[in-house]
Amino acid sequence: MALDRLIEKIEQTQNPTVAGLDPKLDYVPEYIKKKCFEKHGETLKGAAKALYEFNKGLIDALYDIVPAVKPQAAYYEMYGVAGVKALYKTQEYARSKGMYVITDGKRNDIGTTMEAYATAHLGKVKVGGEEYEPFLGDALTVNGYLGSDGIKPLLKVCKENDKGIFVLVKTSNPSSGELQDRPVAGTPIYELMGNMCEEWGKELSGVYGYSGVGAVTGATYPEQIKRLREILPHTFFLIPGYGAQGATAADIAAAFDKNGLGGIVNSSRGIMCAYQKEKCSEREFAEAARREAIRMRDEIMGYVGKITTAKG
Amino acid sequence: MALDRLIEKIEQTQNPTVAGLDPKLDYVPEYIKKKCFEKHGETLKGAAKALYEFNKGLIDALYDIVPAVKPQAAYYEMYGVAGVKALYKTQEYARSKGMYVITDGKRNDIGTTMEAYATAHLGKVKVGGEEYEPFLGDALTVNGYLGSDGIKPLLKVCKENDKGIFVLVKTSNPSSGELQDRPVAGTPIYELMGNMCEEWGKELSGVYGYSGVGAVTGATYPEQIKRLREILPHTFFLIPGYGAQGATAADIAAAFDKNGLGGIVNSSRGIMCAYQKEKCSEREFAEAARREAIRMRDEIMGYVGKITTAKG
Repeated sequence: MALDRLIEKIEQTQNPTVAGLDPKLDYVPEYIKKKCFEKHGETLKGAAKALYEFNKGLIDALYDIVPAVKPQAAYYEMYGVAGVKALYKTQEYARSKGMYVITDGKRNDIGTTMEAYATAHLGKVKVGGEEYEPFLGDALTVNGYLGSDGIKPLLKVCKENDKGIFVLVKTSNPSSGELQDRPVAGTPIYELMGNMCEEWGKELSGVYGYSGVGAVTGATYPEQIKRLREILPHTFFLIPGYGAQGATAADIAAAFDKNGLGGIVNSSRGIMCAYQKEKCSEREFAEAARREAIRMRDEIMGYVGKITTAKG
Repeated sequence: MALDRLIEKIEQTQNPTVAGLDPKLDYVPEYIKKKCFEKHGETLKGAAKALYEFNKGLIDALYDIVPAVKPQAAYYEMYGVAGVKALYKTQEYARSKGMYVITDGKRNDIGTTMEAYATAHLGKVKVGGEEYEPFLGDALTVNGYLGSDGIKPLLKVCKENDKGIFVLVKTSNPSSGELQDRPVAGTPIYELMGNMCEEWGKELSGVYGYSGVGAVTGATYPEQIKRLREILPHTFFLIPGYGAQGATAADIAAAFDKNGLGGIVNSSRGIMCAYQKEKCSEREFAEAARREAIRMRDEIMGYVGKITTAKG
């Protein structure tokens, strides 16, 4: 139930980080693109095959030390139907390697339409007498601007399929405060959204104290993370903004409880483009990604300490 | 530029309505499902082919009298990669018939990720020396919770490709007020979001007085529509909630200016499932959809009067 499977993977790997798979074609080594373009042409299919090859190499290099991947739907949709197929195949491959899959889609709608998104990304759909998993996420990021009508359909599907969600609360971008920081009777909107996560989470309680309704809280806002950890004791945090967006391990330390639980920190470009930063051979992209994942893990674990689900 | 092409189509058809294409398999006539399942099995592909056949019949029945279609991405994603292909083919067919395509995806993210969504749904992507349109929308619905960082990347792509967006302002669902109605220094959040639409729209001004940044405003909240029309003179409204959700033509009358411009009203189930409501033969689904579209047009035009882009 809830995000328990993710928490168990984090404990098992002693690593509260997730590798974001946001594969722009610019990030993919030339030799992979060349191979795929020779076979499929400079087409959307050729591009999609290159993204998948790249992701596969990253997953092979990371699956034993990193608990989860977070493919960002936008980068797959950008390559059309073929790109969306690469998203599915990436999810499938990550799952086959035992990784937890967080689909970053920030989906939102109401009623039966939100049910359709929940079914698409976390559930199963019936076609005649058969049943299929349309996409293969273990958790999905969602946007709560529409209120409970947009979240409740997810809770039902999460319960039935042992899945979780992460609701946008305080996002990592510079302009996130334009709306999210505005005060409603003295309380900023992101806190209101956080409080709603605690409330929605009551329907999806987990065995390790955290519910199946997590929150997205940007690493670039350390004070807000600290405050949110205090007021949202049952809400697990998905934390973007580390590395490329400028936040450090010290900035996110407050997200974690005394057992080292409470959050998972994302790095996308930092890991995917490690070979460019290292200026090593592009054929070493996977090894460079692994080196960066280890560096990041060790840096963050320096603040987190030992991770345990054992009751103290 | 902006939403001008949509406004021209509305004037040409004298019809400020859009047909929502949210095709659940339950809505599709049995004879279409039977044919597609016989050919492709009870598979996601079989389901997707059935959705497309259904949509094609609806578009054929509507394209000369209804200016636009609004496929809702969730219902296609629900059938996996095959379903997403049906979305593309539906957009392609609607475009070939001259209809304006509003992709209802409520996408949202920041920076380069939002650029990727903008490219996916409104732009063109480069693959080597070639350029492709990943999906074929003329406009996209988006969620502004993340602030300007989530909207500005869209404006650039809209400008380059003559496209528009609709930002969620006041949604039609019962719980929309949980967040959207909360007051910030006396101003409800939906008004703040509306004001941001006016501001963002300055970068995409249109020749008929309305910018390329529209707002989603639920027909179920007539008082709020009235207020938003007063304070947002350059913002075109996409109005869901008519029919199945209980709103009437009288409820949305205030959205329109003295030239009959200012909004477009969506009906999904009302049109798609007209044959079920009429209890006619399912083979008459397209004719029934047309009858309902004409009824809806005439009812709304009773409040709107003549639609003209001519300067008064």
